[in-house]
Amino acid sequence: MILHHHPFLAPCRFVRLALAEHALEVDLVSEPFWEARESFVAVNPGLTLPMGYDHGRGPLIGATVLMEYLDERYGAGRPRHRLMPSDPFQRAEVRRLVEWFLVKFEEEVAGPFVTERILKVEIPNRHGGGAPDSRALRVARENIVGHMHYLGSIASARNWLAGEQFSFADLAAGAALSVIDYLGEAPWDADPAVKTWYQRLKSRPAFRPLLSDRARLVHPAPHYADLDF
Amino acid sequence: MILHHHPFLAPCRFVRLALAEHALEVDLVSEPFWEARESFVAVNPGLTLPMGYDHGRGPLIGATVLMEYLDERYGAGRPRHRLMPSDPFQRAEVRRLVEWFLVKFEEEVAGPFVTERILKVEIPNRHGGGAPDSRALRVARENIVGHMHYLGSIASARNWLAGEQFSFADLAAGAALSVIDYLGEAPWDADPAVKTWYQRLKSRPAFRPLLSDRARLVHPAPHYADLDF
Repeated sequence: MILHHHPFLAPCRFVRLALAEHALEVDLVSEPFWEARESFVAVNPGLTLPMGYDHGRGPLIGATVLMEYLDERYGAGRPRHRLMPSDPFQRAEVRRLVEWFLVKFEEEVAGPFVTERILKVEIPNRHGGGAPDSRALRVARENIVGHMHYLGSIASARNWLAGEQFSFADLAAGAALSVIDYLGEAPWDADPAVKTWYQRLKSRPAFRPLLSDRARLVHPAPHYADLDF
Repeated sequence: MILHHHPFLAPCRFVRLALAEHALEVDLVSEPFWEARESFVAVNPGLTLPMGYDHGRGPLIGATVLMEYLDERYGAGRPRHRLMPSDPFQRAEVRRLVEWFLVKFEEEVAGPFVTERILKVEIPNRHGGGAPDSRALRVARENIVGHMHYLGSIASARNWLAGEQFSFADLAAGAALSVIDYLGEAPWDADPAVKTWYQRLKSRPAFRPLLSDRARLVHPAPHYADLDF
């Protein structure tokens, strides 16, 4: 598979994790979406990342589109390790949580952090780069508190986030937290259940490539790659 | 099925259309989400609408969660009228367009129109109601132009929006346009292909209940219920 992505966008990290959990090889293409390259806009007018091609066919545009595709195409072959449960109401819960982390948490927390602290440094001024908006960062730091409590309430009540079974929901939440953790903005002391859950996730082999990502001008928090933090 | 909804939110209309196309009966519950009723928050902390229960089981939270559930549970039984194609890349295109209309178009166009012109009239001031924000309306009126052109480009190139086959993508776009049409904000002259496509959609029996919805204090545009407008 070919994946157009940005290494610090949570929805892109989510799909990289899902590909790795399925043991699928991927060619990553860093896409400077702010440049709106003509050939990219032509197939993807919303400039949505991630975007994938499988066996030369596609495009597959957007994280949940890729999730459903991966599960339909490659999930059935690994029933014991499938990331989408078989019960329809459990599936609904996985999808609800994936949307929670890739849309709501992204809008309220991860998106603003990544935009202000990583993208704006990387993007030239003429394309919208520049100084971070301290108000947006302050709001994201306020928003994360409620989200950590919510995540804690489900992490402590269940084995994995959507229930007994490890699922796409864990990957979505983990992808979102990982970019915040890179920036040293994850309040791990807020809830021990969240930290324990994230440690289990972080020690999976699929997570390893994310831990060696480096932003061009922004260093990771010192503990970013530590499994025991 | 029981559906907690608001009659003028496009994602709720999308699910009502999908239920009607599947010939499923539904008990509608109008949910004053701005009140954050305790029993509603307890199962649905994001206050997301629509939310459904099927045969007493659930909750099924969010429009795309409900879409996938309906297709998995009831789609296979109607292969010739299924709203999700069988080809995996066609499915990806349906899902991409559903997300386009229920997330992107909703954020940029339908959401602001409904919030400013319907919800703020209905919601008490203490819960965030009040006078419409004329700047938000101006931005939505600017945003709709590009969207109508994009919709026109796909409506004129394909039989239905996602391809040959009628699909959830048509319901998502139709639901979003219908609330704008109610408010007289749909620029039908912008693209004849969009108007022709919408007329075909509007004349389907599943659409009829939406055409008799009335907002509490806001009258529909005169042509709202006309099939030939």
